[in-house]
Order: sequence, then C-alpha cells, then structure tokens
Amino acid sequence: MQRFGMMIRLKAGSASTYKRYHAAVWPEVLDKILECNIRNYSIYFKDDLLFSYFEYHGCDLKSDWKKMDSHAKTQEWWAVMQPMQEPLPKRKEGEWWAEMEEVFHLD
Amino acid sequence: MQRFGMMIRLKAGSASTYKRYHAAVWPEVLDKILECNIRNYSIYFKDDLLFSYFEYHGCDLKSDWKKMDSHAKTQEWWAVMQPMQEPLPKRKEGEWWAEMEEVFHLD
Repeated sequence: MQRFGMMIRLKAGSASTYKRYHAAVWPEVLDKILECNIRNYSIYFKDDLLFSYFEYHGCDLKSDWKKMDSHAKTQEWWAVMQPMQEPLPKRKEGEWWAEMEEVFHLD
Repeated sequence: MQRFGMMIRLKAGSASTYKRYHAAVWPEVLDKILECNIRNYSIYFKDDLLFSYFEYHGCDLKSDWKKMDSHAKTQEWWAVMQPMQEPLPKRKEGEWWAEMEEVFHLD
C-alpha cells in the first residue's frame, strides 16, 4: 500500500461552493475512485489550503491514474473543481495537486 | 474512530533538521503515541508547510491528550520541535498545530 499527501490552494471565495460539492460528491466519481484502488481518502481545509490524504491499494498506479483520467464523469467533476483551485507554483511538472514529501509515518 | 488533519508552518532553514529527527523519532515518544490510541499517523511536508494525518482509536480523547501532554520525554521532544515550527496565526486558542476541517471522506 502507498500513502499520499497532496496540497493545493483554494481561490478566495470558493470555500463554500467547494465544500457544498464535496458534501455530496457524484456517485460515479466515488465509484471510479474505488475502482482505481484508492481507499481512506480525506480532504482537509484551512486558510485557503486543501490537503488530501489517501491510500493506494492497487498494484499499477500508472494504469489506475490513466483509468481515472479518461473517465468522462470524473473529467466533468474536475472541470467544476479546477476553476476554484490555484495549484502551487512549486508543484512538479504535470501535477495539479502537488505531492508532498512523507517525513514521518507510524502505523 | 476519529480522523484528524493538522497544519503548521516550518521555519525557513529548519527542514533538514526536522526531517532528520523524524527519520528516527525517539522510541519513548512513539510508544506514548500508541499508548494514547493514535494510529496511522503520517506527517507530510511541502513549501514550508507540515501536514499531519492521524486516526484516534480510543474513547477518551481528552484524557489521552492529557496523558501525552504530561509525558516528560514527549515534552522534551516538543521542546526540540517547537522552535522549528511557526504556528498559524488563525489557529484556535490553545492550539499549536491548527486543526483543519474535514471537507470530504471516502472509506
């Protein structure tokens, strides 16, 4: 299993809309997340920052990302979310949410 | 079980020391964390921000916090960590790490 911590900024004034959408995520989007072997997925918010934590339980991350990337309903979801988000300037090439470095873990 | 997401800033120039300590956390500190019913505890770092995620599996959070607070070796650990950290101005009264709001969760 691989754990991930990701970060992105939320644009000023977007918090209530973002939270409203995430209180009732579209079922097709949730199903695709599970189908792509992601579990224990949380998103936290404070001071215009979003942090996400999730666990990947599959064995082909690249192929699972591709599956999610090409899912029409997920693309539709992202098209609503992305205008509310401001990706970090220091993210890696190709990233939207920026992957953080795990500096500690205790089971 | 309760999940927590917490955030704090790391002072400029502190990252390498902070990471070195967290690569080999003192065993007494780890034992106390487990004794206080905390599991699946991760800390992530990016752009001078630390994010921590953990799960509380006990049934008396207040008493477990107090137990950790009063543990000499843990206090000693915090005395090393805190000068490297810059708590968020918008944290709640009494907080060091600021608790974030969970806006989404999928098991």
